[in-house]
Amino acid sequence: MTVKLQIEPLSRTEFSPFGEVIETEGAERFTINQGTTERYNNLSRVDVLSQGGWPQISIFRSQPRPQPIRLDLMERHPLGTQAFYPLQDRAWLAVVAKPDADPLDPSSLRAFRATGQQGVSYARNVWHHPLLVLEPDSDFLIVDRGGPGNNLEEREFTRTIVLATG
Amino acid sequence: MTVKLQIEPLSRTEFSPFGEVIETEGAERFTINQGTTERYNNLSRVDVLSQGGWPQISIFRSQPRPQPIRLDLMERHPLGTQAFYPLQDRAWLAVVAKPDADPLDPSSLRAFRATGQQGVSYARNVWHHPLLVLEPDSDFLIVDRGGPGNNLEEREFTRTIVLATG
Repeated sequence: MTVKLQIEPLSRTEFSPFGEVIETEGAERFTINQGTTERYNNLSRVDVLSQGGWPQISIFRSQPRPQPIRLDLMERHPLGTQAFYPLQDRAWLAVVAKPDADPLDPSSLRAFRATGQQGVSYARNVWHHPLLVLEPDSDFLIVDRGGPGNNLEEREFTRTIVLATG
Repeated sequence: MTVKLQIEPLSRTEFSPFGEVIETEGAERFTINQGTTERYNNLSRVDVLSQGGWPQISIFRSQPRPQPIRLDLMERHPLGTQAFYPLQDRAWLAVVAKPDADPLDPSSLRAFRATGQQGVSYARNVWHHPLLVLEPDSDFLIVDRGGPGNNLEEREFTRTIVLATG
């Protein structure tokens, strides 16, 4: 039986069990650079240093999956945060599992629609689906962990779970 | 006497004495996420950990200065790198001083025009001008250092140096 997962708007409050929302809206800011720049400071603290890790910056270029979007697997990074920020002003989707729940149980899952001006940082050990975009060639700046150790766990879905994007 | 500084296109080769160019062009990549995503990996390594520092993610929203753009001051961060990536596809300007040269001497300066798909990471201790944008409300994702210690030095220009943007 196909399970259909509803999509909620992304907000700091709703996402707080899973990590941080990176957005200017509602953020602390101050003026720098001779009055020309507002700095929205420290929107996300990068947690990647355990076991000899270091922060690195990458770019992901992602393609949409066929509609309706079927969830493949959940993954998590036990050694560090992973932050995503969209480089075009396009909505995108983040699917996470509640902490300490079975990530393959549909009742553990939550799906969020981010705007093109919202990034997220998944906290260490938070189960999440790989990046889900809605338009071709959607680029993201990524800040995550480089370094030794196994920083990836994956669990594949056996039942059919689709996102209610329609 | 007004000094006019010529602007060069930004490239990895020309920028290498000053830090890293963050761009997909010419970068190592591999496919992830069930074939849906190209990862342009480790475009910049973040160097912010000395003296108890940590990496943080911020957003700068910047306004253009009057034309011709007059340089105000040079700054540098002795304790860490500072990375800038544009969040709109708009050209912007990066002005740096040659290492070990007087940052206020016009002959030490180089000005680069970045595309809207090029970020930079200034290496630790590299003198650079504060962010220079060409359009209103130009947003950048910033990865730099939080933590104790003095991570900012500034030197103000006394002579008039303008960018040859015309």
